[in-house]
Amino acid sequence: MPIRLNSRDPGFEEAFARLLTMKREDAPDVAETVAGIIADVRARGDAALLELTARFDRLELTADRLRISADEIDAAVGSVPPGQREALELAAARIRAYHERQLPEDASFTDDVGATLGWRFTPIAAAGLYVPGGTASYPSSVLMNAIPAKVAGVPRLAVTVPCPDGVLNPLVLLAARLSGVDEVYRLGGAQAVAALAYGTESIAPVDKITGPGNAFVAAAKRAVFGKVGIDMIAGPSEILVIADDTVEPEFIALDLLSQAEHDESAQAILLTDSPALADAVEAEVARLLATLPRAAIAGASWRDFGAVVVTRNLSEAAELSNRVAPEHLEICTEDPEALLPEIAHAGAIFLGQWTPEAIGDYVGGPNHVLPTARSARFSSGLNVMDFLKRTTLAKMTPEALKAIGPAAEVLAQAEGLTAHGASVTARLERLNREE
Amino acid sequence: MPIRLNSRDPGFEEAFARLLTMKREDAPDVAETVAGIIADVRARGDAALLELTARFDRLELTADRLRISADEIDAAVGSVPPGQREALELAAARIRAYHERQLPEDASFTDDVGATLGWRFTPIAAAGLYVPGGTASYPSSVLMNAIPAKVAGVPRLAVTVPCPDGVLNPLVLLAARLSGVDEVYRLGGAQAVAALAYGTESIAPVDKITGPGNAFVAAAKRAVFGKVGIDMIAGPSEILVIADDTVEPEFIALDLLSQAEHDESAQAILLTDSPALADAVEAEVARLLATLPRAAIAGASWRDFGAVVVTRNLSEAAELSNRVAPEHLEICTEDPEALLPEIAHAGAIFLGQWTPEAIGDYVGGPNHVLPTARSARFSSGLNVMDFLKRTTLAKMTPEALKAIGPAAEVLAQAEGLTAHGASVTARLERLNREE
Repeated sequence: MPIRLNSRDPGFEEAFARLLTMKREDAPDVAETVAGIIADVRARGDAALLELTARFDRLELTADRLRISADEIDAAVGSVPPGQREALELAAARIRAYHERQLPEDASFTDDVGATLGWRFTPIAAAGLYVPGGTASYPSSVLMNAIPAKVAGVPRLAVTVPCPDGVLNPLVLLAARLSGVDEVYRLGGAQAVAALAYGTESIAPVDKITGPGNAFVAAAKRAVFGKVGIDMIAGPSEILVIADDTVEPEFIALDLLSQAEHDESAQAILLTDSPALADAVEAEVARLLATLPRAAIAGASWRDFGAVVVTRNLSEAAELSNRVAPEHLEICTEDPEALLPEIAHAGAIFLGQWTPEAIGDYVGGPNHVLPTARSARFSSGLNVMDFLKRTTLAKMTPEALKAIGPAAEVLAQAEGLTAHGASVTARLERLNREE
Repeated sequence: MPIRLNSRDPGFEEAFARLLTMKREDAPDVAETVAGIIADVRARGDAALLELTARFDRLELTADRLRISADEIDAAVGSVPPGQREALELAAARIRAYHERQLPEDASFTDDVGATLGWRFTPIAAAGLYVPGGTASYPSSVLMNAIPAKVAGVPRLAVTVPCPDGVLNPLVLLAARLSGVDEVYRLGGAQAVAALAYGTESIAPVDKITGPGNAFVAAAKRAVFGKVGIDMIAGPSEILVIADDTVEPEFIALDLLSQAEHDESAQAILLTDSPALADAVEAEVARLLATLPRAAIAGASWRDFGAVVVTRNLSEAAELSNRVAPEHLEICTEDPEALLPEIAHAGAIFLGQWTPEAIGDYVGGPNHVLPTARSARFSSGLNVMDFLKRTTLAKMTPEALKAIGPAAEVLAQAEGLTAHGASVTARLERLNREE
């Protein structure tokens, strides 16, 4: 049974605080193993990749077969049933259209002293995308990582995907093709991350690596951070639903279960001002769990980390939700927009009962790579800006330098940085001599 | 003597590659010490802070004196000479005006299936700013970190600054006041970072920590990352100047020296198509070095890491600059804007010989917290977005769900996520029944 709380109960504050700090993940410490793999790839390049791939993926390759050829991709893509292809094409088109709106504008303006200031955005030159193998090899994640990179204008996008026993995943390859991915390598684990970060004879290094992965991949991303950029290290998925009694309990129950079925460490929380809805949703979850192929996983998540909280009113629910800062927030109330101004922290918000979170996972348009573990307090989901850098621009005229240079001289002096001051003074003296 | 290269020489490629991968910093491994300090602060709160402050800063405090009172700030601020106050006020006003232009816009739009999509930006609720003590305690850095946070709308901004022997830095306190900082604590080192991340009886925790610091502070920021957000871990400063023979060698020499004087590990590089300018700048650096109070530092940096590279033309200089991805890039040529389209990676760009980099350190307007160690390939300087989060929004109508829901069902099925599919199916069935 999930935790059941009522904000009116004594002891609620303590119980809710426990919910917030619940440890859901025991990441194994694989840093040392990963450091060894990275050192090996740096030292021996392709030879290390081939050896590690034979060992971990039971796949004997030669260096020229690390990259999946266009012919192989054609063949795999051709095997995708038309219905799946159309669904993936719709998803790609919608994700692309949404992310194109995120492209930021360069700026240039002249200020009151005549200085021209501004900034411009340029894409990262090369990005790498890690795609997990096996059951976690989600084509939707390929779209969600690759499309923002291509919309940003990243000219080179390399994907690595482990292919245990040599088996290719046609939908992953189709997603890569639809996204405009430039290179795909049959490679996984920490060795893939090392190859992307440092390069080998066959794989040119990239500047930033994104994408989910297991504990080894996460540790490798942490280890190469600094040498290259990385996206977030994602934790188990979460959903928080704020609902009133105008919505269908079955819908809410299924939305809670769609997070719970991801992972035994996932967390699903319902906040409602209606005790009747709370009861009804709990009953629906119990009923629907039995129908799910992934009932064992979803059941464990709901039992260990699920929570149903009855609040005094919807504003209190918003306040509690802000303390959670959930990855996914559904506002399933009669007037969801009315609550929006009270929401301060959430990765993605789904408004109204016709917007199941699963729509956002696939075809909504917004990104499904979102901050977990309460990090929506300080970070955002993956977006086009993750593949762009802002470079600031400044150009002084002689007049502008005369206007603001003296203040820079004073501050440089106060900070004891003499050459800083002198670089301004020399120019001002020249300008004064020329007058 | 700095490295002198000519791109026409045999062996240039190898020599330039060595320049790119030169190791300039030997960060001491203090992770274990820092882990102990963080654990101590988490376990004992204020008591640990007081003990560590007595030990490291030779300052005996009581918990109620951790925070610097408004009266103390008033007194310190009152002691700042008017010229310094005016310079800092000018800097603050210009930095604020520039960063206000960075405020991004929320978006909401209805797409072709009738779905309402968009995003909104919300500020981080509480930010912490670490200000180093001693000679590295730069008031300009307080402005550069604090003003973007306040422009973003961060309601609570706490500063920690070590005060060895109890000595306050009036300019730092004035900068904090001009920036709208809410709380200032006399606290430094890993213990300050731990207090900001986890909170103590006297200091409420924050959600993100920015600001420069020594190896202990950097290690502490790494350690608390995840619990809170952090900005980059900055390395030693760098400048790259692209110049032609139309500019004054003395100006260029002083700009190179303003980075070199920061730190023995700083790096200053000149790329020019003019061998004569290369010679003249080298001579000027040698002459001017002797005049600097920080000659020992600047001289060591120039000797060990400085470089002067003669290129075939300015386009080649731009290309080489892109491989460096410098923190600061000066384009000191007759027509600096002409080269701009060829620059792909740089933290900040300064155009023309009337724009010394030092202007950007203090009063230009753009931020001086910039990506070092070639990380401008994949990251940006500090900006207003660092204190905002983007939350995506999606709202389906029944019609929109009918249009795109079936594709989500297909993809959920393909990924084996049954509850995801069912959450869409249940709604579509309801809508079909209602028709």
